[in-house]
Amino acid sequence: KQYRIAVIPGDGIGKEVMPEGLRVLEAAAKKHGVSLHFDHFDFSSWEYYEKHGQMMPDDWKEKIGKHDAIYFGAVGWPAKIPDHVSLWGSLIKFRREFDQYVNLRPVRLMPGVPSPLAGRKPGDIDFWVVRENTEGEYSSVGGRMFPDTDREFVTQQTVMTRVGVDRILKFAFELAQSRPKKHLTSATKSNGISITMPYWDERVEAMAKKFPGVKWDKYHIDILTANFVLHPDWFDVVVGSNLFGDILSDLGPACTGTIGIAPSGNINPEGDFPSVFEPVHGSAPDIAGQGIANPIGAIWSGAMMLEHLGEKVAGKSIVDAIERTLAERTLRTKDLGGNADTTACGKAVADMVD
Amino acid sequence: KQYRIAVIPGDGIGKEVMPEGLRVLEAAAKKHGVSLHFDHFDFSSWEYYEKHGQMMPDDWKEKIGKHDAIYFGAVGWPAKIPDHVSLWGSLIKFRREFDQYVNLRPVRLMPGVPSPLAGRKPGDIDFWVVRENTEGEYSSVGGRMFPDTDREFVTQQTVMTRVGVDRILKFAFELAQSRPKKHLTSATKSNGISITMPYWDERVEAMAKKFPGVKWDKYHIDILTANFVLHPDWFDVVVGSNLFGDILSDLGPACTGTIGIAPSGNINPEGDFPSVFEPVHGSAPDIAGQGIANPIGAIWSGAMMLEHLGEKVAGKSIVDAIERTLAERTLRTKDLGGNADTTACGKAVADMVD
Ligand SMILES: CC(C)[C@H](C(=O)O)[C@@H](O)C(=O)O
Ligand SMILES: CC(C)[C@H](C(=O)O)[C@@H](O)C(=O)O
Repeated sequence: KQYRIAVIPGDGIGKEVMPEGLRVLEAAAKKHGVSLHFDHFDFSSWEYYEKHGQMMPDDWKEKIGKHDAIYFGAVGWPAKIPDHVSLWGSLIKFRREFDQYVNLRPVRLMPGVPSPLAGRKPGDIDFWVVRENTEGEYSSVGGRMFPDTDREFVTQQTVMTRVGVDRILKFAFELAQSRPKKHLTSATKSNGISITMPYWDERVEAMAKKFPGVKWDKYHIDILTANFVLHPDWFDVVVGSNLFGDILSDLGPACTGTIGIAPSGNINPEGDFPSVFEPVHGSAPDIAGQGIANPIGAIWSGAMMLEHLGEKVAGKSIVDAIERTLAERTLRTKDLGGNADTTACGKAVADMVD
Repeated sequence: KQYRIAVIPGDGIGKEVMPEGLRVLEAAAKKHGVSLHFDHFDFSSWEYYEKHGQMMPDDWKEKIGKHDAIYFGAVGWPAKIPDHVSLWGSLIKFRREFDQYVNLRPVRLMPGVPSPLAGRKPGDIDFWVVRENTEGEYSSVGGRMFPDTDREFVTQQTVMTRVGVDRILKFAFELAQSRPKKHLTSATKSNGISITMPYWDERVEAMAKKFPGVKWDKYHIDILTANFVLHPDWFDVVVGSNLFGDILSDLGPACTGTIGIAPSGNINPEGDFPSVFEPVHGSAPDIAGQGIANPIGAIWSGAMMLEHLGEKVAGKSIVDAIERTLAERTLRTKDLGGNADTTACGKAVADMVD
């Protein structure tokens, strides 16, 4: 079978890291006899927006909706386009309209990458953050009243649906069940956010009954972030709402040294729509154009994409190549204290693929 | 002038740390000629609830509303009373009904306390978190529809008022202006939370114009938590909504080694109502009754209370005594790797007061 991948580099360093991601994907595909076909798209970028007055063509769903996966760089350039136009016109649109209700991110301390946490070694930190990716705090319901007066106020609703909460919890419990530790942690704040969060807790308790083999616990988000720093070895699978998952999946990678190497998948588990794989770092306008961006977040995202497509061996070969490259400490980018440029680092990983 | 302080130990280790807090306050008052009068109250505890079926007497406002400040231990014991009864019936009631719209917490790496962050030394981490304490995400507006069906959903509104946002920002900018670095960081998430957070940003920008001497920046909460771990030296004053401030003021103390020593003030700056000073740690049912709780969070909260009352010298004498006790490393509690009990640690700090 040939997999058809839509490639969208997007903005800023997205454009610089994607060629390296593709280089490594091609190396792994060749070694493992996987057939990948790439279609490149220039939309979801500020250049496209400047030309067309919108982030994506009207027929974007026809263009990329039938692909097996979407390989994405980064989007957003606040100095050129407001975030609500660029992000809500592409990234968040994909999540919603392709029903990518799982945002999945590994938090793993890699060999050779110093952790900002004192005394932590590879193996100490190795867990997944599972984030609800379509509803919750990222709603579009709300508004403003009495503008420009002392009575002015704004409201915005957090929305949690039974369908939306249950399916993300099911995914998280299943993931926990597949892991040796079989341990799930739920992020809540039901002591302060008094309606939606107790509902989340209630659904966690109901779902837990269906997974008697999984040990589970819950922490309020405030102390949970503290425990990421104090006891990162506690975690195995952490599940949270859209906002809590967003926070935890930036904090987690920070605890493992850098956000530059962290990958993510925006996944529609049923396969009704293509899933999007993208590095956690954004477009990084401040370093764009210098060729110094770390391509490992994009490369690792490619590995997640292969695993999602069912090509586990090829995917693992990339993760192993990343580990070996990082462990060797020679060909790494500036953010990790090295002096390799983006291309040199990408080539090093591609050469390591076995 | 004699200050009248309402003392409410509350639940769990609140009862164990408060006597030490009082011991140190008395020592400082004596040295510095400050006159403190303490009135003790047993409400806002599960024992009170068991006897009376409510957390506080009907006339709680008459009982403590005229005091100069409230010195609080901890409240909550989920195994005995649901959080929404215990917390919303006391702590959150104080914040709302005494209009304590500022929650103020120092994040400071103290001498002698090892930071979980590699290579950080006292002086590297020294900032304040200013949290909006009455509105925002902790609202009471929302509900559930279609219970127990597939259509079930819950909503909860985040509410931000012009009055509420502007007054906390003003407090934060004033605090930043009073500090040597004059640097304010605002926590936002306007790229994902598309109505309330852009409003917050808008008010920050407007307020910044009134404080031309303050340098300010804003970060999305996800990368902001990452930066607490990666670049804690960047921060001077950090201001956030009720939820974001809650998260940052647990994560911050975690980065400085332990939540056991962190203090907080729930402040009504105008003095129309008494302010509440309490340690950041909660009632900690798991270690309650053993006499091993760290009293420094409560003691430091007492120092913040004296400063709030205008007794800066006496307040500072307590903070200095805490620093010296911690630096000596002899009389510290178990959570800091020592073997002093709560009382021994409290006495050590009291003896150090100068
Ligand atoms: C106990 C809880 C409701 C409270 C809060 O979230 O405000 C606590 O975490 C705090 O920070 O004081
Ligand atoms: C860019 C932003 C809207 C996005 C989010 O908050 O979801 C990003 O932080 C992420 O985690 O993918």
